[in-house]
Amino acid sequence: MTSHGSNGTPAPTKGARTAARIRAVAFDALREDGWRATTMRGIAERAEVSPGTIYLSLPSKEHLLLELYGETVARIEQRAADDLAGVRIFAARLRIVMRVALDEIAPFHRVATEAIGQAIAPDSPVSPFGDETRAPRERMLRLFATVVEDSDLVADRRLREALPELLWGLLMAGMLAWTSDRSREQRRTRALVEQAVPMLDRAIRVTAVPLLRRQVRDLLALTAAAKELSHDDA
Amino acid sequence: MTSHGSNGTPAPTKGARTAARIRAVAFDALREDGWRATTMRGIAERAEVSPGTIYLSLPSKEHLLLELYGETVARIEQRAADDLAGVRIFAARLRIVMRVALDEIAPFHRVATEAIGQAIAPDSPVSPFGDETRAPRERMLRLFATVVEDSDLVADRRLREALPELLWGLLMAGMLAWTSDRSREQRRTRALVEQAVPMLDRAIRVTAVPLLRRQVRDLLALTAAAKELSHDDA
Repeated sequence: MTSHGSNGTPAPTKGARTAARIRAVAFDALREDGWRATTMRGIAERAEVSPGTIYLSLPSKEHLLLELYGETVARIEQRAADDLAGVRIFAARLRIVMRVALDEIAPFHRVATEAIGQAIAPDSPVSPFGDETRAPRERMLRLFATVVEDSDLVADRRLREALPELLWGLLMAGMLAWTSDRSREQRRTRALVEQAVPMLDRAIRVTAVPLLRRQVRDLLALTAAAKELSHDDA
Repeated sequence: MTSHGSNGTPAPTKGARTAARIRAVAFDALREDGWRATTMRGIAERAEVSPGTIYLSLPSKEHLLLELYGETVARIEQRAADDLAGVRIFAARLRIVMRVALDEIAPFHRVATEAIGQAIAPDSPVSPFGDETRAPRERMLRLFATVVEDSDLVADRRLREALPELLWGLLMAGMLAWTSDRSREQRRTRALVEQAVPMLDRAIRVTAVPLLRRQVRDLLALTAAAKELSHDDA
């Protein structure tokens, strides 16, 4: 189905162009109308395609959330890569990623408050912990890995290794808190992040003290056990 | 509307007896059929009352969740009071309350996994953080206060004061994790609690070390800010 342009690189097919237009129109609808008021029929009308065409590239409204995850993570990755270049201080690197993440999700706050119920159900196809969202989750984990690895952070060695996943977990907890933020443009979540980053930095650095070795081991064992919860019984 | 029995104490009215029967029947339905399959019409049929009668004591399915919160907290309070009597060791007291809570919510695991989406939405009337659930929440907070106060716990003074609320927050986080537990009879959550209680005990006691005073202040400031998120802008 792929055709080639005169320069030899593949040109997008008509189908791919239509899918991209549908996606762009759908994201506009989500930004403007939120999750509940956005309908597949409405997206088809805005994109000027038949309802049949839309289901080819977007089988359900839930798929729209999956597409939104992917696109948002891609934008966070790109902007963070630019902003992180040359920055070595751990707290500064962490702050950059958290700010970029908050910026990129901001237009979808209403979507998030309306769709959080769908996303959090344990059997939800759009759960941020589920199989369907593995790709964007792993990309965020890699981003947090570069935050740690390319920084000046000194901390307990095993905590340092587990840190990308713990930071991702904190981002998820922060996003859950953000959905309940009723302040204008979620300025309270932004203030909370500015406050939390230096605190977290201090808490992580203090783990280099041998006195706290036991607490670090406890924390890592507990998060490992928590991750097992959703596995099926053998 | 209250009539009095021959011994002078008020006897329950017919209306109150009907409401109690409807509630008992409704909880049976939730235990057996889960949240989605339970209908108001089905409850009316089981209770042998008209749909009109049921709406008098149970205006909506969400009210059923509120009633379930209240009843479950009352049972946890009662059993915990018995089991806590004479126990002074903090970790033992905390373990008792967590075990009792897990026992009492166990029959409603399917309800919780199916209704978590409803409960977690920030504008939900059945949110465990909302106005409608203030009474059962405050009763659980009082229970955690007795866990701390009547114990041998030595910790940073301000942490000790904030501890009932922090422990309640951990219970909420634990319940969220429990909804995603797919092991038989949620044995993994039970194992996680058995593991977490001594860890938490050690982590709290280590805060008595002056080195960690700053971390304790950080934690308390952060939780105070997180609690503000859902307040309306002034």
